[in-house]
Amino acid sequence: MALIVQKYGGTSVATIERIEQVARKVISARARGDSVVVVVSAMSGETDRLLGLARQIASRPDAREVDVLISTGEQVTIALLAMTLQKLGCPARSYTGAQIPIVTDAAFGKARIAQIDPARMQADLAAGRVVVAAGFQGVDADGNITTLGRGGSDTTGVALAAALGADECQIFTDVDGVYTADPRIVPTARRLDHVTFEEMLELASLGAKVLQIRSVEFAGKYNVPLRVLSTFQDGPGTLITYEEQQVEEVIISGIAHNRDEAQITVSGIADQPGVAYRVLGPVADANIEVDMIVQNVARDGTTDLTFTVHRNDHERALEILRAGQAELNAREITGDAGIAKVSVVGVGMRSHAGVAARMFAVLATEGINIRMISTSEIKISVVVSEKYMELAVRALHEAFGLDQKPNAH
Amino acid sequence: MALIVQKYGGTSVATIERIEQVARKVISARARGDSVVVVVSAMSGETDRLLGLARQIASRPDAREVDVLISTGEQVTIALLAMTLQKLGCPARSYTGAQIPIVTDAAFGKARIAQIDPARMQADLAAGRVVVAAGFQGVDADGNITTLGRGGSDTTGVALAAALGADECQIFTDVDGVYTADPRIVPTARRLDHVTFEEMLELASLGAKVLQIRSVEFAGKYNVPLRVLSTFQDGPGTLITYEEQQVEEVIISGIAHNRDEAQITVSGIADQPGVAYRVLGPVADANIEVDMIVQNVARDGTTDLTFTVHRNDHERALEILRAGQAELNAREITGDAGIAKVSVVGVGMRSHAGVAARMFAVLATEGINIRMISTSEIKISVVVSEKYMELAVRALHEAFGLDQKPNAH
Repeated sequence: MALIVQKYGGTSVATIERIEQVARKVISARARGDSVVVVVSAMSGETDRLLGLARQIASRPDAREVDVLISTGEQVTIALLAMTLQKLGCPARSYTGAQIPIVTDAAFGKARIAQIDPARMQADLAAGRVVVAAGFQGVDADGNITTLGRGGSDTTGVALAAALGADECQIFTDVDGVYTADPRIVPTARRLDHVTFEEMLELASLGAKVLQIRSVEFAGKYNVPLRVLSTFQDGPGTLITYEEQQVEEVIISGIAHNRDEAQITVSGIADQPGVAYRVLGPVADANIEVDMIVQNVARDGTTDLTFTVHRNDHERALEILRAGQAELNAREITGDAGIAKVSVVGVGMRSHAGVAARMFAVLATEGINIRMISTSEIKISVVVSEKYMELAVRALHEAFGLDQKPNAH
Repeated sequence: MALIVQKYGGTSVATIERIEQVARKVISARARGDSVVVVVSAMSGETDRLLGLARQIASRPDAREVDVLISTGEQVTIALLAMTLQKLGCPARSYTGAQIPIVTDAAFGKARIAQIDPARMQADLAAGRVVVAAGFQGVDADGNITTLGRGGSDTTGVALAAALGADECQIFTDVDGVYTADPRIVPTARRLDHVTFEEMLELASLGAKVLQIRSVEFAGKYNVPLRVLSTFQDGPGTLITYEEQQVEEVIISGIAHNRDEAQITVSGIADQPGVAYRVLGPVADANIEVDMIVQNVARDGTTDLTFTVHRNDHERALEILRAGQAELNAREITGDAGIAKVSVVGVGMRSHAGVAARMFAVLATEGINIRMISTSEIKISVVVSEKYMELAVRALHEAFGLDQKPNAH
């Protein structure tokens, strides 16, 4: 008999009918002999509705009160799911973050979990009840309600699994696992049975938005086996494990893409210490996150710095930099929102030379110009014109043989 | 500097605009030098929306989970009001029932307050903050969320005022005080400056639904001065005080009416001990509340028992009684939903003979047949055909001189 934590997102609990579907999945797991803790998000649209009310009052409503407000979203869902389980004959009890309790720091809107007391949940499980816990929320040491930030329900699931020593944390989503590429772009994309935590981190940050990055980090830290499954169709999903447990010994596990970014180039700046900070400092001060950063060797004593930001922040970042252009003594500041990032991801590339060369060759064959390159231990990312993105993903998927199930070697 | 508890109902916080109006009233009270604790209900319609979701799941959803669900209604309002106060420059902090804490028994859906710890509120007030508290909810000794039952926010206001030793508990509603009769029926009805707790109890239970009965009882028990005021227009409202403090020494303070009831007569039953219990026991077992009960002296060894129930329960009560008719050995069981109750209320009638006689004379003059009579120390109620209700209220209002401001004697 295993102890399973199941997490269902907002889409999975969007209506009373879907909540019943979730309840039936929980009951199936119990029928297999498992004990179940369920973590749920707010019904989809509810958090935005509540935030809309707050924004009618003030553009920057008080953070403590925003958390009091939006934490009601999950509280509604836990009650509805517990009622549904009971109606179907399954004993269940709901808990808010404060009731469990999930103690966090006092950073309203982006709190981090400090401690979870599993005693109350364990007593319910021992009594044969399903525990229905509100995701995304906690309580600080002074009893104030906190939230973990949007999407934080995944983190709640992993944290509860860690606190309970659960055998598996199952994240139910609207996809049935992690794929070698986006199936909407690559029809032959294949569901992976396993990926490593590290690969998942890269895939998640690169646009395969199946899981929240923080929850994956958290699961890795506490050694919680994570599985991604579909709420709406049966199947084994994708198990996210440590590298040591990897079964498919492949070089490349997937092709990720991201078209949410835009590029900014500051050119003709003096090649001297501190110049990258002088460019990026004001951008960071404005709370704009920078993703890729590329600086090439200087030419004629000047250098060009190129980086990417989220497309929503592009105009603002450009304004900030142009306001400081004279001070930076930059020749030119240019932006381009028509870009996309394409990445090849796989822990196997650590021990296999030539992945980068092969990737660049494939893109060259297709006539796709590479505008930026950035690499990590387990991924190679390139920035290309947005219009070539789909072609690049498909060509790479085929070239690396991802549409065929690999043989273990 | 006084300490005031203000309670605003669902209509007063129905929209963001109205919440701002409430915030401005709170700020006015502070400008007069008062410390303020505000108790709010859910935005009007919200509790019904949430209960509607629960009823989609089960006709009798689990009571514990219903409380988890509907307590979110007030939680949304406290957050929105605290945000609004802060936007207007007034320091404020919101608290759920569990956060204060308002400890109740574990009777979900109809919990009673056991204990309130005022320390947290006092610390906020001392720091110059407005305390915004969720009405209608509490927490039991095990940390489960409870609700006080519908309309229970008035009780929360009174209970917080008692716990804090507040100078006054102000209940803001959509009427500007307690009237001598319903102004929609009697255009000359007059707002009362004062009523006693006992009169208010009778007026509230008789359909002048300005305040929840339990909150009035509670205020009497803890000696909390209560004031009924309008959210939407300025004015002194009506102060509810103990008899000793009564200023207007009048005989009759108001004419109440109620057309929510229906009448049931069980006739021709044996006049023997226990017969009233055998009739009313099964009705009470079905959780149907009985209001007036009249039994006259027996004739020919049999008697008739007549009582009133809420109109919504009329059919069900009739079915229950008819199912047991043979056992009761009753000649006939009849019902009539076309009735209304009209009552004359006033502490002064204790010391003034002839109020009943005068009441019956007025009704006789108008040709209104009296179907049932029931009296208490400070009220006389009659049941008449519904069609005569308005006529009866107007005639009594005039006959007892309620449209004129009385002189103290």
